[in-house]
Amino acid sequence: MFYMVQMYVNRPESMTDEDWGVIRKREMEYGQSLMRDGRFRHIWRVVGEVSNVSIFDVDSNDELHEIISNFPLFPYMDIKVTPLAPHPSGLPQMYQYETAGAVA
Amino acid sequence: MFYMVQMYVNRPESMTDEDWGVIRKREMEYGQSLMRDGRFRHIWRVVGEVSNVSIFDVDSNDELHEIISNFPLFPYMDIKVTPLAPHPSGLPQMYQYETAGAVA
Amino acid sequence: MFYMVQMYVNRPESMTDEDWGVIRKREMEYGQSLMRDGRFRHIWRVVGEVSNVSIFDVDSNDELHEIISNFPLFPYMDIKVTPLAPHPSGLPQMYQYETAGAVA
Amino acid sequence: MFYMVQMYVNRPESMTDEDWGVIRKREMEYGQSLMRDGRFRHIWRVVGEVSNVSIFDVDSNDELHEIISNFPLFPYMDIKVTPLAPHPSGLPQMYQYETAGAVA
Amino acid sequence: MFYMVQMYVNRPESMTDEDWGVIRKREMEYGQSLMRDGRFRHIWRVVGEVSNVSIFDVDSNDELHEIISNFPLFPYMDIKVTPLAPHPSGLPQMYQYETAGAVA
Amino acid sequence: MFYMVQMYVNRPESMTDEDWGVIRKREMEYGQSLMRDGRFRHIWRVVGEVSNVSIFDVDSNDELHEIISNFPLFPYMDIKVTPLAPHPSGLPQMYQYETAGAVA
Amino acid sequence: MFYMVQMYVNRPESMTDEDWGVIRKREMEYGQSLMRDGRFRHIWRVVGEVSNVSIFDVDSNDELHEIISNFPLFPYMDIKVTPLAPHPSGLPQMYQYETAGAVA
Amino acid sequence: MFYMVQMYVNRPESMTDEDWGVIRKREMEYGQSLMRDGRFRHIWRVVGEVSNVSIFDVDSNDELHEIISNFPLFPYMDIKVTPLAPHPSGLPQMYQYETAGAVA
Amino acid sequence: MFYMVQMYVNRPESMTDEDWGVIRKREMEYGQSLMRDGRFRHIWRVVGEVSNVSIFDVDSNDELHEIISNFPLFPYMDIKVTPLAPHPSGLPQMYQYETAGAVA
Amino acid sequence: MFYMVQMYVNRPESMTDEDWGVIRKREMEYGQSLMRDGRFRHIWRVVGEVSNVSIFDVDSNDELHEIISNFPLFPYMDIKVTPLAPHPSGLPQMYQYETAGAVA
Repeated sequence: MFYMVQMYVNRPESMTDEDWGVIRKREMEYGQSLMRDGRFRHIWRVVGEVSNVSIFDVDSNDELHEIISNFPLFPYMDIKVTPLAPHPSGLPQMYQYETAGAVA
Repeated sequence: MFYMVQMYVNRPESMTDEDWGVIRKREMEYGQSLMRDGRFRHIWRVVGEVSNVSIFDVDSNDELHEIISNFPLFPYMDIKVTPLAPHPSGLPQMYQYETAGAVA
Repeated sequence: MFYMVQMYVNRPESMTDEDWGVIRKREMEYGQSLMRDGRFRHIWRVVGEVSNVSIFDVDSNDELHEIISNFPLFPYMDIKVTPLAPHPSGLPQMYQYETAGAVA
Repeated sequence: MFYMVQMYVNRPESMTDEDWGVIRKREMEYGQSLMRDGRFRHIWRVVGEVSNVSIFDVDSNDELHEIISNFPLFPYMDIKVTPLAPHPSGLPQMYQYETAGAVA
Repeated sequence: MFYMVQMYVNRPESMTDEDWGVIRKREMEYGQSLMRDGRFRHIWRVVGEVSNVSIFDVDSNDELHEIISNFPLFPYMDIKVTPLAPHPSGLPQMYQYETAGAVA
Repeated sequence: MFYMVQMYVNRPESMTDEDWGVIRKREMEYGQSLMRDGRFRHIWRVVGEVSNVSIFDVDSNDELHEIISNFPLFPYMDIKVTPLAPHPSGLPQMYQYETAGAVA
Repeated sequence: MFYMVQMYVNRPESMTDEDWGVIRKREMEYGQSLMRDGRFRHIWRVVGEVSNVSIFDVDSNDELHEIISNFPLFPYMDIKVTPLAPHPSGLPQMYQYETAGAVA
Repeated sequence: MFYMVQMYVNRPESMTDEDWGVIRKREMEYGQSLMRDGRFRHIWRVVGEVSNVSIFDVDSNDELHEIISNFPLFPYMDIKVTPLAPHPSGLPQMYQYETAGAVA
Repeated sequence: MFYMVQMYVNRPESMTDEDWGVIRKREMEYGQSLMRDGRFRHIWRVVGEVSNVSIFDVDSNDELHEIISNFPLFPYMDIKVTPLAPHPSGLPQMYQYETAGAVA
Repeated sequence: MFYMVQMYVNRPESMTDEDWGVIRKREMEYGQSLMRDGRFRHIWRVVGEVSNVSIFDVDSNDELHEIISNFPLFPYMDIKVTPLAPHPSGLPQMYQYETAGAVA
């Protein structure tokens, strides 16, 4: 089940470069673990912005909220979630991925 | 090179069901030809709306405008284009597709 | 799985009272069938507007889109969907309903 | 009498984790006391956000303002109130609750 | 119990002056009957616009929706309702009116 | 001559409870002196918000600006002024008040 | 007493050039009579738009509404009124005009 | 050549009353020198706000930017510039001023 | 003197393809005559939209309004004008063009 | 391939004049190196604002993001990117520049 998640990052003025680096490193590790288990299908950066367009593939609204609220950058992001469905004009293979989306 | 294209369809009140059906059929055929040659990578419908989120993979801004302005529904859509780039946290395979994006 | 759906009705100027009455009758019948099978949990009208706030309880984004796009008033409504999750402060019984939400 | 209340929480940068934890604990206790006496009928979190959609069932505008302005998080929330009424298409049981809404 | 109601009138292009005059006459009669029974406390026009700011004093959200949706101009107005409460700085007499707001 | 004034209060994070209490006390005294001399006709709080809807009855734009800019909370408020006029559907007594609006 | 009035003109699609010409001629005559008696102090067009920025100098909100609602183009304009006052940094002669603003 | 300039002043929380007073005094002196040489034609305050509507009469966009960016309050203002032209309905004397707008 | 002009084209539903073609041909001829005399320096289409970003180089606000209001598509466009100035970081040759901008 | 980039600069309150001066000097040097190699085609300041309208001419979305995110002022700017294409009414020479846009 697909969702578009748009994330806009706001770095607090008071945070040091070192602390920010630590959080971003954890963010990347957490994000890539979700990518590898098949729940975080796509991520693109928006050109010229500190924001991204992401596609998640999860089993429920609750699972998506759990995933998003555990992002290390969660307290520093504005987030917009848009629920998606396959489009009748889309080719079937557009919605099939090799990695299963279910959590072991 | 990736772009997010968001399309919002507005059916004119004066158009008959028959004419609308013809246009939508041509729209689907045109869209699927772009999907098959690898330039129209993804399409999802936005739940509850007559709109979609699409990802195009083309060689230039000009090629994208050419593609979009030839959609049979183009005169009846509001369209928003967002240029995208690979995200440094993304896995490499997220930006590689089997079908080539270049036009023969 | 819960969703808030906000529906804003726009009656076309050219539609006769009779045609509008027929559509609204079908709308009510369709909506109430969804209420009885447990997928359309709540509906409130917004005071002073021809709009409503509704809560759906369905198994997937796709099922919700299918339900919404079959509303007889669908072509005449602006619709906004917000995915919801149980709130950690909520009492457990707030998310349990007697009628099952799954379709037989 | 029903109201939708949408609450968006903004944590001040200068507040410590400990202070924030204390306020949130009091917030939950206060909210649940209102849920138990029947005035706070529903609460859902908005997926991906630190915000919620709530339904209150009280006797007057004044009572609702009294309730909201006593939330421990009130100084840190943006709040939007929408007055609601039963919808003519709704089933009667949708507006009846076992717990009385009146305060003893 | 007080509410601010802001009404923005949109006259349809296709309506004749005569029909519009009839509706506006009925609108005034209906509005003044509500003013006389004490439920429609104030009305001011917004300078330079075909809109007004009104204050209603009714017993419930439901009663207010019933009143508003019976305005002859209801199908031709955009309406925004804001629930109000007495302000702690206000003088007591500001919220007391000679005519009772309850309907016999 | 009537004006709607909508005031939205923003308390600065750095202000102590004591200082804020002093300013609010002066705000109430100043407001009530204007209510007693007939220039500050109505004030309602907006349910769920730290804002109000007020009606002033003064002799000129200049007098209104003088009044507003002397509010102790003026530096901490966003303010929106809407000039009003009697509405042709309003009853005459709706625009007559016992206390004179002119300053002695 | 000064007001900024911003007028945005919307010509209806169904109006003929001839009818539109007649209304615009009456509009200019009416406007210029107000300019000559000193109540319509300034008018500038906004470059590139069918809109204008105007300054009126009248005795009351009511007089301004009367003036505006009598413009022949009134049914075809969106209008925004902003009440103004002399600015403490302004030179005194900026607010003095030879023609009296009062109506004979 | 005319321009409307709308200025919204935002005083930083950290600035002392004394520093603010110094800047405002310099602002007034600078503004009045421009008024006397004929380039700053009008200034009105917006009732209830710390903002103004101003009309400048200068020879070019570049000259206007030079003037605005030298305002002592420039770093503390949001500014919106609207290019204006004489309106065909305006009386000729509305666009003629005794003081020349050119700089010696 | 430079201006950015953003034009959004709205084709009326009632206009025939033939009439629209005639207007667009005249639009192109008029635009290109301005490009050749050096007043219409740049035009780019916005990808995916029926709109453009244009740069004009003219002697005054009045000249720009005259130019824009004579566009054959003027009645069918929403237009936004932004006055520009050379930027201090720009290279001098960025603001020099071979064709003179002045009209003979 | 062209893009419009609109940059809005927000100087943090806590930054000293000296630090700000250093960053702005580096910004200008970096910008001018891009101008000289032909990728940064135009820059205009928006009159009255600390913002600019820029035109870039690069080979891909990715290259543009790389360029923008390396601006020394990048952490202090809001940026909006609009992909552009040549306009069919534009003269061919409008899109040809002497300096090559490709990086050696």
